[in-house]
Amino acid sequence: MKTYLDCIPCFLMQALRAGRIATADEKKIKRLLDEVAMMLRDMPMENPPPKSARSIYQKITELTGNHDPYRKIKDQSTEEALSLYPDLKRRVSNSEDSLLTAIRLAIAGNVIDFGANWNFDLDGKITEICVKDFAIFDYDQFKDCLHNANEILYIGDNAGECVFDRILIEEMKKPVLYAVRATPIINDATYEDAAAAGIDRVATIISSGADGPGAILETCNSEFIDIFKKAELIISKGQGNYEALSGEKGRIFFLLVAKCRVIASHIGVKVGDIILKGPQ
Amino acid sequence: MKTYLDCIPCFLMQALRAGRIATADEKKIKRLLDEVAMMLRDMPMENPPPKSARSIYQKITELTGNHDPYRKIKDQSTEEALSLYPDLKRRVSNSEDSLLTAIRLAIAGNVIDFGANWNFDLDGKITEICVKDFAIFDYDQFKDCLHNANEILYIGDNAGECVFDRILIEEMKKPVLYAVRATPIINDATYEDAAAAGIDRVATIISSGADGPGAILETCNSEFIDIFKKAELIISKGQGNYEALSGEKGRIFFLLVAKCRVIASHIGVKVGDIILKGPQ
Repeated sequence: MKTYLDCIPCFLMQALRAGRIATADEKKIKRLLDEVAMMLRDMPMENPPPKSARSIYQKITELTGNHDPYRKIKDQSTEEALSLYPDLKRRVSNSEDSLLTAIRLAIAGNVIDFGANWNFDLDGKITEICVKDFAIFDYDQFKDCLHNANEILYIGDNAGECVFDRILIEEMKKPVLYAVRATPIINDATYEDAAAAGIDRVATIISSGADGPGAILETCNSEFIDIFKKAELIISKGQGNYEALSGEKGRIFFLLVAKCRVIASHIGVKVGDIILKGPQ
Repeated sequence: MKTYLDCIPCFLMQALRAGRIATADEKKIKRLLDEVAMMLRDMPMENPPPKSARSIYQKITELTGNHDPYRKIKDQSTEEALSLYPDLKRRVSNSEDSLLTAIRLAIAGNVIDFGANWNFDLDGKITEICVKDFAIFDYDQFKDCLHNANEILYIGDNAGECVFDRILIEEMKKPVLYAVRATPIINDATYEDAAAAGIDRVATIISSGADGPGAILETCNSEFIDIFKKAELIISKGQGNYEALSGEKGRIFFLLVAKCRVIASHIGVKVGDIILKGPQ
């Protein structure tokens, strides 16, 4: 997906949000905003947004000296999500269609913003996603692909969300390669976040090589690209991966909540809609 | 009120919104965003935000050649608001405290975003504001000031909203000077918008001289500054005027809905709260 005009102010807003998490020094944050604002002009509109976001987050590290500002938030997200794990497993086993419930929970893991505070009705939010109608629902196609696949490539998104992914992986009952970011970027899952969520017990964790908030193939390592190209079934979680991979060919199923207007409009749905979108 | 860090991405978002209204040419809008982004660094944080917003909107005119992009929206707003006028008058005359109802309606006029489309439950929105608790409610102080004032300076905000202001002016039963912006800026009311709303029948319309979206005194003409300094009662409508005047002395009553986090936090209320705030 290319960059849209709406992404430009959003980049600056993301810089502010991440800057505040990285440092309490208002002067440093102001300098960050000034420098990011100067960078905007040179960000190619044909690039997927995560490619530009990557250079913004690199600037945050450069200016604040903080290599992983979201570390604490990520750890906390994983811990909170793990505390829900037994209940989530019960929801799956008590449901009529356990695979579908696990898919819904994997999407719920994506809707909950683990970067935000936890003072919201989490249980209510999960229940809402569990009964919400899908805006795009390629479930039969997904089941066919799953049935025929010998191995699944699962491209993770955020820390904390990994716990929800683990439940879907357990439900699919097939070997899974779970791809994470190579280095910390926002609250995206790296190896240690996936392992802390227990993904290492149910799948093989691999690095995509990507150091931006989305698995843009040209930024991925050759092993990942090779796996991606040969994959019989790819699950892509979240907006960042959708932005990175929506133009790629392959048996990709996108699982996400459309959180912003640009992505919702690109997919042809409304903000807040939940999506299970297979290849055309 | 000074500029906060949150205002910086918001300036760019405003440029995008206004750019889209001024032109359909995406390349021009991209150039506008690039140029505004380059301007951000030099916007002094000690300035009230409308002062910086003014230079952004000047840039829009410069790049698009459109001197008054909101003209059509403003005309439509006034027309729609006028169609509500008889019903609003009935609400006032049927209420127990007609002055208070008129104040609530003047605030309702501020909450409704006349720049947005009209496909929302307008009547419901007005009714909501008519029963909502005030977060700050200096009503007794306002009544005292009104009782003692021989003349009122009423500083208007948006086109369309003028119709709601007219109702409050009619209810106050005192001579009113109604101040508008000197030149078109966003959807703010100029002389012709106020006149189209019928303000000329109930008050004397004057220009504040301000060409930004808020009556920052140093940008106002000397006549207005003189009236402002001598005024026995000043009504300041909306966020832009709050940003411009919250640091000024005088018998100023701010009537507004806190629409953004920065202003809500500056006042000490929540986003969405309604305010009638007198001098301390």
